[in-house]
Parts: sequence; structure tokens; C-alpha cells
Amino acid sequence: MLPDIEQVLMAEVEFAGGKGTEELQAMLRYHLGWEGEGAGLKAQGKRIRPLMVLLSCAAAGGIWEDALAAAASVELLHNFSLIHDDIQDDSEQRRGRPTLWKKWGIAQAINAGDSMFSLAHNSLLGLSKISSSIYSSAIKILPMSSLKLTQGQYMDLAFENQENVTLEEYWKMVEGKTAELLSTCSKLGAISAEAEPETVAYFKNFGVKVGLAFQAHDDILGIWGNEQNTGKSNHSDLLSGKKSLPVLYGIKTDGKFAQLWNSWNFEADEVASLADALEADGAKQFAEEKVNELTEEALQALDKAIVNEEAGSALRELALELVARSF
Amino acid sequence: MLPDIEQVLMAEVEFAGGKGTEELQAMLRYHLGWEGEGAGLKAQGKRIRPLMVLLSCAAAGGIWEDALAAAASVELLHNFSLIHDDIQDDSEQRRGRPTLWKKWGIAQAINAGDSMFSLAHNSLLGLSKISSSIYSSAIKILPMSSLKLTQGQYMDLAFENQENVTLEEYWKMVEGKTAELLSTCSKLGAISAEAEPETVAYFKNFGVKVGLAFQAHDDILGIWGNEQNTGKSNHSDLLSGKKSLPVLYGIKTDGKFAQLWNSWNFEADEVASLADALEADGAKQFAEEKVNELTEEALQALDKAIVNEEAGSALRELALELVARSF
Repeated sequence: MLPDIEQVLMAEVEFAGGKGTEELQAMLRYHLGWEGEGAGLKAQGKRIRPLMVLLSCAAAGGIWEDALAAAASVELLHNFSLIHDDIQDDSEQRRGRPTLWKKWGIAQAINAGDSMFSLAHNSLLGLSKISSSIYSSAIKILPMSSLKLTQGQYMDLAFENQENVTLEEYWKMVEGKTAELLSTCSKLGAISAEAEPETVAYFKNFGVKVGLAFQAHDDILGIWGNEQNTGKSNHSDLLSGKKSLPVLYGIKTDGKFAQLWNSWNFEADEVASLADALEADGAKQFAEEKVNELTEEALQALDKAIVNEEAGSALRELALELVARSF
Repeated sequence: MLPDIEQVLMAEVEFAGGKGTEELQAMLRYHLGWEGEGAGLKAQGKRIRPLMVLLSCAAAGGIWEDALAAAASVELLHNFSLIHDDIQDDSEQRRGRPTLWKKWGIAQAINAGDSMFSLAHNSLLGLSKISSSIYSSAIKILPMSSLKLTQGQYMDLAFENQENVTLEEYWKMVEGKTAELLSTCSKLGAISAEAEPETVAYFKNFGVKVGLAFQAHDDILGIWGNEQNTGKSNHSDLLSGKKSLPVLYGIKTDGKFAQLWNSWNFEADEVASLADALEADGAKQFAEEKVNELTEEALQALDKAIVNEEAGSALRELALELVARSF
């Protein structure tokens, strides 16, 4: 599936070219990992989301090639959000290379993200060549999904300056920022297979739960992950003061960690003991249990909906991979 | 038509609310001029683009109420681009009030623009309640139009650091940055009236030519405009070094202006003599002739397509107003 994904993505990015805008296209090609220094598989990312679309389509009994336009669309939407995220978070590196804003400046990077966003919507048009009913269902989903992404992003950015963040608010943020796009993937896949509404709902629920589990798992890695596997420094989320799931649990528990967190003067050499206190307070275990619980729910939803067992197994594996290591 | 436009816009922005994201919605409501300090008609802007959609629909023989969803969509798309423009241009004021990024910071303003962009695409869904054939035609236009906007914006931003900008490149930039959205307005209006393809093409051409004329006229105002009418300081485009139509003409003509421009050390008190030299070199007359020529072509295209004479007259007036003063 991967070569086909690259092919539809490349065909879509061709639209952003034309006389006088060659460099805009080059920015998109750079971000997608196809050109510039460090281009290649690592720079492209794992294409998890388009794979989820195609596997969901096949698992729901459809022909996965029919869902390629939808697969390209979600990957473009994901990458649009990464381009803007990197500006918002002041991140200088993405997949081991300088970010778009670092290379071309903030103004052009905002615009390149907008361009990628437009292409995401344009890409869905490809579905109309397969079936007008699939297309008309899919086109109703994407704008709402984009909107929910921006709502999740709003909350995530707002948390930085918000004194008391509740676990309820945390899950609502994750629903928008992480789970929405993954559930759009599984839903669009099922829709491309012309599955029954009940089946589409199971696939959607699968995506939501995988997304929530993935974020909780990623939060664990952000504190206790191994630098070599995650590409981030150990305890990086504690250093940046991120209000992730374990931290919010620790604050709520009001034990040793909360005491340190509230009085902590942000010295890098104290962060290991902070992580230890958080673990001792039960936050790691709490988050791990959440990951397991949500993954279990995701797989249960999937089991109810699978038509093609071979594709279903691959989709199950993809989900398990997502929560077992960070992408 | 204006109260109806506000009503559909408000209904659309309602989607961006919900628990935990009230402030994101407040940002959109502020930008659209409905709340916060200085809210009111001036802060809302003139809603030229939605008016152009509705009048085009009526002029093409349709019922203008049928085009309201399309009208909201283009206004949201326009305002998304303004939010990001203001960040890119480092503009602190918009319609007499602090810009979104100035009030909420760059990160949240980028995201609010993305949210508005999503709503623009979501808004078109309203057309499907009127007619599925109108909706399916309209939904194919918006992503491509958004993409062209970002291409025009790319060129405009790139011109700042580009030594030699040709008139050909200038017109290509304006096609994307200004004319694309106005032609989307007139085209969507005609489509909402279920006009014949030939008529739709005339309406589209009308919008393109109005857009080009509007930008050329705006460029004249940027140098020789009256501060009281334009809200900008006199000669503001010369001070900022903007490569506008008269300036590009002056450089190409290689007369008195070009000599001053190349050796100019950007002292504010010399700018009046620079404007005089540019006028003496014939740049103002050249740009004015362009405005007249393009306006003439726009009205000719419109004349061929009008079905409803009353709405057609109103549309003609709107076009003339656009090139006779700045909005």
C-alpha cells in the first residue's frame, strides 16, 4: 500500500505547482520528506493515517484502492496540522530535519500549511471518480473533522497558561487533537467500502479509542520513554511543564509529586526525581491502565465490524503498534 | 441581504463553540466584528464578497436566498486569509481594532484562522439542503480556490525579497491573491442560480476582471490615496517598499522614479517627491488606464450574462464601487 500512498500524495502536491510558485511546491515536497537534505523514509514519517484508511476499507470488505484519495486527504490534513503545530510550539526539528518555518520563515510556513490544508480538501474529489455516493458521504466529514482538530489544538495551547486543567478537559482536548483524525481515518475507510451505517459507527469508535490510547501512551513516553526509541530527551514533557495525563493525575492525587511540582524551580537535574515521585504516586500505572483499557475497547469495536479477516488482522496490528511505541 | 448574511455567518460560527472552546469561538466572533471593544458595522467590514455571491445569483435569474450558504462560505474564507495575512504582514490593526494575533498571540491566531478555514468548507454543506446538484458543483470549486489563494499569497510574500518582479508576475500574483476569491463569488452565485455553463463562465470572468481592477485601484490608493478615505497613511506603500503596479511600471520605465527608488534611503520626508516622480513618469496614468480597461471588460462580461436586470444593476454598482474607493 505504501508506494500507492506516495503516488497519490505526489499527484496531489503537483497541483500546488505552476509558474511562479515552484518554491511553494518545494516546501510541501520538503515537508512530506521527498526532497531537500535528509529526504527519505524517515523524513516521510510512517504514513500511519493513510494506512489506517486503506486497511479499514479492506477490513470492511471494500477494495482498498478505492480509498486512496481519502488516504491522501487525511495524510495531507495531518501534515498541514504538523506544519502549523511546529510554528505554534516553536519546534525547530521535525523527523530529524529543520522544520518548515525554520527554513523558510514563519510567514511562508503558515501559508504552506494553508496550501496543504487546501490540498487535503481537494484530494477527496478523487473519490467522486470511484462513486458519487462515497464521495458525497466523505465530503461531509472532512470539514467537521478539521474544525475539531482546531478545537483540540485550541485547548492544548490554552492549557499552557491554564492553572487548573481537569482530566475531563484533558480527554476533550485529546479527542480533538489526536482521536478525531484517527477516527476520521477508520470512518472514511469504512465509508469507502460502502459499509452499513452500523459498521461505519464501529470503525469510527475503533479510531476514537485508538487515538485516545495512542495519546495516553505517548504521554507515558514523554516522561518515562527511552530517548533512543522516542527521539525525545528523557523526561522531556516534565521539563517543558506539559500538562499530560500522568502529570494531571499526579496533581489530582496531591501526593509527593504535587508537592514537588508546585514548588519545583525547573532545574534539569532534578527532573529524574520528579519522574520517580510521579511513578511512586501511581501515575504511570494509572496511565498504563488507561492505555490498556482503551486499546481493549478499540479492538472490541473492531471485532464487531471486520468483514475481511486478513485486513482486519493487519489493522489490529497497526493499532497495537501505535500504542506500543511512538511514531 | 446584509442581515441574512450576518445570520448565516453567526449560525456557522456557532459550530466552533462547545464546552472548553468558548474562547476560540470568541476569537472568531471578535474578528468578524460582533463582539469585543470596537465591535459593530465598521469592524465587520462591508461583506462585499457575500453580497457579490447573492447579487450574482439573483442577476443570473436565481433566488438569492438559495446562495446564502455559499455567501457565508466565501466570507469565512476571506476572513481566514485576513487572520493569517495579519500575522504574515505583522499588522497590528485591522478595521480600526487590534488584530487577532495582537490580542491572543500568534499561536492561537494561526489556529483561529485554521478554524475559520474549516468553517468555510463546512458552510457550503448548507447548499445541499437547497439542491444536491448545486452543492456538488460548488464543493468542487472551493478547495481549488483556496489553493490558488495560497499561491497568490506565496508570490506576494516572495516579492518582498525578490529583486526583479515583472508585470507578468504581478498579474499572476493578483490573480491568486485578489481575483480568485472574487471570481469564486460571482461563479458560486451563478451556480446557485443553476445557470448554464456559458453564463457561469461570463460571471466568472466578470469576477476575475473586477478583482484585477480592484487590486490595481487599491495600488493607486496605496500611493496617492487620501488618508481620510483609505485609513492608511499617504504614500504608505512607497514607505513599505511594496512592489505594487505603479512601482513596477516606474521601475520598468527606468526614468526619474527608478533613479530615486534605486538610490533612495527610505526617509519618510522624501516620499512625497518620490510619489511625484512616479506620477511624472506616467505610472499613475498607466495604472488608471488599467483599472478602466479591466472594469470595462468586467462590465462587458456581465452584460452578456444578466437575466434579472434589477439585480444586474446592483451588481454593476457594487463592481464600480469596488474600483472607485477602497474597502
